[in-house]
Amino acid sequence: MIDGISPLDQDAMAAARALHARLTKPAGSLGALEELSVRLAGLAGECPPPLPEPAAVAIFAGDHGVHAQGVTPWPQEVTGQMVANFLAGGAVVNAFARQVGASVTVVDVGVLGELTEGPGLVAAKVRAGTRDMTVEPALTREEVTNALEAGAQVAFRLVDEGARVLVTGDMGIANTTPAAALIAAFTGAGAEAVTGRGTGIDDDRLARKVTVVRAALEAHRPDPADPVGVLAAVGGLEHAAIAGFILGGGSRRVPVILDGVIAVSAALAAAALAPDVVGAMVAGHRSAEPGATVALAHLGLEPLIDLGLRLGEGTGAVLAVPIVASAVRVLHEVATFDSAGVSEK
Amino acid sequence: MIDGISPLDQDAMAAARALHARLTKPAGSLGALEELSVRLAGLAGECPPPLPEPAAVAIFAGDHGVHAQGVTPWPQEVTGQMVANFLAGGAVVNAFARQVGASVTVVDVGVLGELTEGPGLVAAKVRAGTRDMTVEPALTREEVTNALEAGAQVAFRLVDEGARVLVTGDMGIANTTPAAALIAAFTGAGAEAVTGRGTGIDDDRLARKVTVVRAALEAHRPDPADPVGVLAAVGGLEHAAIAGFILGGGSRRVPVILDGVIAVSAALAAAALAPDVVGAMVAGHRSAEPGATVALAHLGLEPLIDLGLRLGEGTGAVLAVPIVASAVRVLHEVATFDSAGVSEK
Repeated sequence: MIDGISPLDQDAMAAARALHARLTKPAGSLGALEELSVRLAGLAGECPPPLPEPAAVAIFAGDHGVHAQGVTPWPQEVTGQMVANFLAGGAVVNAFARQVGASVTVVDVGVLGELTEGPGLVAAKVRAGTRDMTVEPALTREEVTNALEAGAQVAFRLVDEGARVLVTGDMGIANTTPAAALIAAFTGAGAEAVTGRGTGIDDDRLARKVTVVRAALEAHRPDPADPVGVLAAVGGLEHAAIAGFILGGGSRRVPVILDGVIAVSAALAAAALAPDVVGAMVAGHRSAEPGATVALAHLGLEPLIDLGLRLGEGTGAVLAVPIVASAVRVLHEVATFDSAGVSEK
Repeated sequence: MIDGISPLDQDAMAAARALHARLTKPAGSLGALEELSVRLAGLAGECPPPLPEPAAVAIFAGDHGVHAQGVTPWPQEVTGQMVANFLAGGAVVNAFARQVGASVTVVDVGVLGELTEGPGLVAAKVRAGTRDMTVEPALTREEVTNALEAGAQVAFRLVDEGARVLVTGDMGIANTTPAAALIAAFTGAGAEAVTGRGTGIDDDRLARKVTVVRAALEAHRPDPADPVGVLAAVGGLEHAAIAGFILGGGSRRVPVILDGVIAVSAALAAAALAPDVVGAMVAGHRSAEPGATVALAHLGLEPLIDLGLRLGEGTGAVLAVPIVASAVRVLHEVATFDSAGVSEK
């Protein structure tokens, strides 16, 4: 799969730039959307690239041994309860997905306890929650590989079923803690620079969370050149699965819209495994979590939306779906100066 | 109409805030979208407010006597040519509107020359272009009033036809020049702080444009306490019509999504006529034009999208339509902690 991830097609990108110059609008007047559409042409290897519709959201759910360190006031059973909420269509991500016509698939890669199977739930549990990364590595290398594979298989299945853009989602009480550790490990930033308030914790708990992240990094000293090792030491099952999901989408040359801090921490792992996969990534939004901004800068991605969201689930990325589609539509539908009989300057 | 514009309903806003606190998400985790949904509840006077669908874009088109001063390299006939492009569905705003299911109506309030009538075109020409504001007032007070009325009538008609959110659009070669003058007049900012490159003019032409804006302001010394007088001195017919469109939407308590610098300059005029109408305004995006940021700050509005767009037509505002709808959907569709059986912290 990783061998199938190749650089953007420069010819298709040049064709998209040339087409933009002929469309009935001042050059460059669509700002960041022009470069986005050019990049998606490069990903598809054709101009115009296919319209990125329909969209499919995959919410990867897992629990975290580090919850025992008091990094969040939310009880661990909320992970499974929110999975049920997603399946019932009652969460914010469901409302946002209905707005844009996206499907929602929930993937259990690591929730504690048994979930009731049902439509929309993919049972792919690698392990019932991670180990406490402050005590021992969160995962074995084999567990990481299994989660990467589970994520890629979901991407393949959604693309096979017709999805033309993939959207990352996540659920896991305490999962901003491993996300912060992953971002620190891959970017070299300090724990205090990448650790945030998650669901909205107070100053005392934030201080504790920074200490926990720092302790895990000092215990394992993860090597960013060994992404599987990093994910094993301080990752989460949903983080590893999202990395696999991104790699799976990239190998099929389908764009993957990244949600918040969990997604961008996973994206760092995916990029470390296959640097060219960054070409398939679209940063849906800038999470309020400070680590998200650090990770986006490392990946060289500018987010489409910046509204202070910090919910996760895929919510920020789903909001970006129509923007991505609009950027591509321009290359399909807008008249040229010649065809419309519009004078140039 | 102006008497019909009243403050936001505080009870409905309190109800929306209380509902947000019960929904299955951490408090405040939807960032700016929470306050947006609260404000729309206040506008509607009920919680939840109606879903803002369908959306209707109105593109107000006009020409400008100040074109003679060399403020843009684009020939004036492009205004009418782009109107034809809108009616044929070939412009960027059409592609974006199709993406979000919005209708597009083009309103001739001041295009030079005759336009071919056809479906989607509202003939409401007040005058064939404005006068050159560096030589004389651009419009008479009566022409301004007629354009305000034309804009309001379009808002009423679209709402009567079922629109539940209005979107401002504009077309008019040279129209960023009167927009800059309006923003300077209403905010007190200097010409150099509010005048931008529009379609992408070079340094020499930008310097000329700043001089033109300054000259018009010095010639007329418009009084911001007399908004009709300001629009007459340095405005445009599409600017005045958009101000009326905003007032019309606000008087029907329907939200109006503002596009770029033309829209926000018109919004300043609307707010000067009826300060409470700001409650009906949603800033769709932050235009790359510097005057847009000055005007948004004066109105106290934060834009939903900030992607460096500088096309006009309504494009940035149309991109924001699904975001506004998503914000409201949350209040309609998301489960509460109680109903979903999700534990609280």
